[in-house]
Amino acid sequence: MLNLIEKHRCFDGFQEVYSHDSSSNKCNMQFALYAPNKKENIPVIFFLSGITCSEQNFIQKSGYQKFASENEIAVVVPDTSPRGKNIPDDENYKLGKGAGFYLNASEKIWSENYNMYDYICSELPKLIDENFDFSKNKIGIFGHSMGGGGAIQCALKNQNIFKSVSAFSPICSFKNSAFAELAREKYLGNNIDTINLYDPIFLMENSNNLGHIKIDVGLNDEFLNDLYISDFENICEKQNQKLLINKHKGYDHGYYFIQSFIEDHLNFHALILNN
Amino acid sequence: MLNLIEKHRCFDGFQEVYSHDSSSNKCNMQFALYAPNKKENIPVIFFLSGITCSEQNFIQKSGYQKFASENEIAVVVPDTSPRGKNIPDDENYKLGKGAGFYLNASEKIWSENYNMYDYICSELPKLIDENFDFSKNKIGIFGHSMGGGGAIQCALKNQNIFKSVSAFSPICSFKNSAFAELAREKYLGNNIDTINLYDPIFLMENSNNLGHIKIDVGLNDEFLNDLYISDFENICEKQNQKLLINKHKGYDHGYYFIQSFIEDHLNFHALILNN
Repeated sequence: MLNLIEKHRCFDGFQEVYSHDSSSNKCNMQFALYAPNKKENIPVIFFLSGITCSEQNFIQKSGYQKFASENEIAVVVPDTSPRGKNIPDDENYKLGKGAGFYLNASEKIWSENYNMYDYICSELPKLIDENFDFSKNKIGIFGHSMGGGGAIQCALKNQNIFKSVSAFSPICSFKNSAFAELAREKYLGNNIDTINLYDPIFLMENSNNLGHIKIDVGLNDEFLNDLYISDFENICEKQNQKLLINKHKGYDHGYYFIQSFIEDHLNFHALILNN
Repeated sequence: MLNLIEKHRCFDGFQEVYSHDSSSNKCNMQFALYAPNKKENIPVIFFLSGITCSEQNFIQKSGYQKFASENEIAVVVPDTSPRGKNIPDDENYKLGKGAGFYLNASEKIWSENYNMYDYICSELPKLIDENFDFSKNKIGIFGHSMGGGGAIQCALKNQNIFKSVSAFSPICSFKNSAFAELAREKYLGNNIDTINLYDPIFLMENSNNLGHIKIDVGLNDEFLNDLYISDFENICEKQNQKLLINKHKGYDHGYYFIQSFIEDHLNFHALILNN
């Protein structure tokens, strides 16, 4: 069911990559897994990447393995969309392959394969549970940019699955972000009820609170105005949602920013999931 | 003289990339620089990358910035060959662009531009000294694979410049390694006297000893037989050269191996250069 396609010893554990046939997306998908030396009953966290990424970017560039190893946490890194030559795509990098937005598409040509929400919240946790000995209950989620917003919306609606959540530079307003304009139109037909289902700010106002949310963002982020971080802070304050937010002077949107603060995120998830 | 083309805040310092016109290679070259928060009179170490790499691979994949920042060490990462559309090249990845082998070519079509030895040992240290406030005396060198062998041969012949040296999975026999077969023939016309000038094992037998040499290598390295590590160990023993060698079970030749032990290398150079 799972095919191992990469395996590298790394910090006393293994960085692995698997492929499998996805029932949600009706195509072959790849995900990466870091498995520390100890494997039984340890926490698992899912990292959702940003637009244009595959499962490779985070595992090559963030330096997270050292802290996953030290904290004895497994980390699953899915791809950001369905893949393959028969999968619908678009020339614009904000739509199609590499830009699945962690939602279930409702509109024609996209709805058959673009079901990343089901993939992340149902199929992949089940697959990990069936194939590995990690804990079934200590599961967290985090992500970057499109994947930061994805982590928050998935966590808010699946509090029985995801017990900890954090984000780097998340797109907090799926409804308003220019990054998501094509996604709203093409995947969801601009249907506001469906859009709200994937909007962190709307969901924050209409869900039970999470324990804590941790967010890091760079103040030199070239997309800062399109992330709607302040609006998310305001709604968290209104809802009495505990938000640990750090705004870092001089840091931008990229992986040099992520690697600078990745240790804090692994420690944050370890602290919550091991308690 | 230097053009800044990338600058990212990273671990309280900056990951930068510069371009400049190289007098050694007669083309425009790029190098990367990590400058920690403190800059005055701090040690500088040069990292020489392996075949096919540019200045980008190490800075994106090794996770060294955290430890350069903590140790307050600047790190310079040059490209592995001259670059540009008018520069001679070859279809084989072991010759031409991405495979400069840190030598001065003597043979036609290559000798005009392929002078990476002069670039690393003369031009680049001078350029760094002229443009930054780092220490002029606390300079080290390290590298990986082709660049590991390059670091050792450059250090053995330039002990007035490079005060510390280490390597990941170095090609220890430029004379015998299959990786270097085309380089020996095309760059150097198979002239044994010139080949010896760039051969770590020959140089180890015919130079003054270095203080210490640190080497890490993975025992699952797919190129292990072509690195001639045992021959290098033997010659170090014969010459009473202090060699700190660690052979790591299960690790391969790639960046997941490098990132697992990069902290040790930064600490090694810091310890020597700050004493």
